[in-house]
Amino acid sequence: MSKTIKQLGEHGLLKIFQQYCSPVVGDDAAPMGTTLPNHQMVVTTDMLVDEVHFSDRTTSPEDVGWRAAAVNLSDLAAMGARPWGLLMSVGLPSNTEINWIESVYRGFKECLQTYGTELVGGDTVRSPIRTLSVTAFGQVPINRLIQRHTATVGDALVITGNHGLSKAGLELLLHPEKYSSSKISQDLRQILQHHHQRPIPRFDALATLENIHHTKLRESPKEDRILIDSWSETCKFVVSGMDSSDGLADAIAQICRASQVGIKINWSVLPIPDAIKSLAGDRALDWVLYGGEDFELVLCMPWQVATEFVQQLPTSTIIGEIIDADSEDNQINKLEMHSTFQHF
Amino acid sequence: MSKTIKQLGEHGLLKIFQQYCSPVVGDDAAPMGTTLPNHQMVVTTDMLVDEVHFSDRTTSPEDVGWRAAAVNLSDLAAMGARPWGLLMSVGLPSNTEINWIESVYRGFKECLQTYGTELVGGDTVRSPIRTLSVTAFGQVPINRLIQRHTATVGDALVITGNHGLSKAGLELLLHPEKYSSSKISQDLRQILQHHHQRPIPRFDALATLENIHHTKLRESPKEDRILIDSWSETCKFVVSGMDSSDGLADAIAQICRASQVGIKINWSVLPIPDAIKSLAGDRALDWVLYGGEDFELVLCMPWQVATEFVQQLPTSTIIGEIIDADSEDNQINKLEMHSTFQHF
Repeated sequence: MSKTIKQLGEHGLLKIFQQYCSPVVGDDAAPMGTTLPNHQMVVTTDMLVDEVHFSDRTTSPEDVGWRAAAVNLSDLAAMGARPWGLLMSVGLPSNTEINWIESVYRGFKECLQTYGTELVGGDTVRSPIRTLSVTAFGQVPINRLIQRHTATVGDALVITGNHGLSKAGLELLLHPEKYSSSKISQDLRQILQHHHQRPIPRFDALATLENIHHTKLRESPKEDRILIDSWSETCKFVVSGMDSSDGLADAIAQICRASQVGIKINWSVLPIPDAIKSLAGDRALDWVLYGGEDFELVLCMPWQVATEFVQQLPTSTIIGEIIDADSEDNQINKLEMHSTFQHF
Repeated sequence: MSKTIKQLGEHGLLKIFQQYCSPVVGDDAAPMGTTLPNHQMVVTTDMLVDEVHFSDRTTSPEDVGWRAAAVNLSDLAAMGARPWGLLMSVGLPSNTEINWIESVYRGFKECLQTYGTELVGGDTVRSPIRTLSVTAFGQVPINRLIQRHTATVGDALVITGNHGLSKAGLELLLHPEKYSSSKISQDLRQILQHHHQRPIPRFDALATLENIHHTKLRESPKEDRILIDSWSETCKFVVSGMDSSDGLADAIAQICRASQVGIKINWSVLPIPDAIKSLAGDRALDWVLYGGEDFELVLCMPWQVATEFVQQLPTSTIIGEIIDADSEDNQINKLEMHSTFQHF
């Protein structure tokens, strides 16, 4: 059996933490440098509690660490921001095995390295329940902030990838017996489980948007001088949106409420993967709309930009259009009807 | 009886949180603007757990909130930084009374307002144990960062206020019967308890240092032009140190270890308040050195600066001098002998 934290002591635990942390740790606070020119900082934070947000039954400690990082990085991506650094505090019972927390740090760092950022600080305390608290800092060019309240009638609604896969993976992890007769391969089962355990923050969508900004810049030579002087402050188009951590329907509803607009979804193009049809049967659409935890981006942008976007990012789809809130085609009430997910 | 969180629901709790939060909340992350010119950002974070870091027996919910803010603000002050904004995540059992968490937010905000900063975001989740996780951001002029590893032989050791008072307050709260015969007034008892419940981050010490920087600048007219051009990047002296959250002895030991220097304390000037002598008897010095949670600053600076500092900040005292680590006068081992505080 692995040593426990009680046996290791506080200083031993701190030493393990420092192996995964950038070398500035040791003072009362961590120096983080300055924001980039023409950028502003954004911050986000999440608390994750054992048996509420993760569980030994469904998630290895490495995956707990990866998810804790990815969930916060996804919030940065959803604001249009690149990561600048993260903090992780952990509360642990004294009988926690060292292996467990070391694996969490390892998975956390693996995710950070994948997205070019690092752990810069944190806290380690005693707690009766395993608790992680992660804070992520990002930087976003001024005027390129992606927010919920700026969607405009006429915008296309774009999703960066498929929804329902994380729910499918979780179902397979929690109730494998329920789905033993479903006609999907062992490989596909593992891919779905992996989708739940290792969510991907969609920074690639930001690269696509950046690329379109630059292309637009090249195509409008008259404005070149102004744009080149202050390109990072200039937007040729506004992108609105958020991530789909609480489900696709929830994201759409929140954008519509914040922007005081309506939504018309083109149901015939909304992707419902075959694997989800096999597993969920006639509840497949429910899983897609309300499954949650897919951490895709749900973005509103002018149609012309959206068309370029889905060409450049092949996993993405235009699934609808922002319409007037008062329009009789507005489907917001229908979407919200099933949105009953409650944390408490 | 007050309503519980279960009765209120997640959205109700979020609404309470938003009353205490700056109005930017609502997106995946909070926009925070840019660092000031010639400043850099520092960050610090603390996790506080019920019955580990606070208790209904000794601390009202308002004071839990104040302390959660003050502890993190003190870490910023200890780095020489002014606050820029804070995050607070809370994990709560469903049966938590709304009154409790609302009072925590109120005390938290009261502390933030006192020091001119605000709550900019956070998370609210379900947890079997009441848990707070606070992150504080600050900004410090480049080259004015106060760190532990830069103390120099010949520096004076300065404390910004008395030590042992928080320990005295805690003892009175936990074991009032033990001290019922001590000859200290009811008023003084309450002052000591208040000292434990409402620690003060010593930003006034930063103002004093700033003032000395400016005075020095006026006194050296030859260098004026250079200094005025880049005053915030120029230091006429280096200040090292940290706060005394884990006790005065611990702070001195950590500075000495990080700077590879020794310490000679002038025991005859180390303040031991009469109230502590009355309560602790022959353990008074122990309370002063190892009591902890006083959140004073323990600073090392050139003697000439220190002399000005203690004149301008009347609560402060020069209690010793940084000496060579190999000197036979080095008292570090003696100090560390009793420093057995362990979080686990």
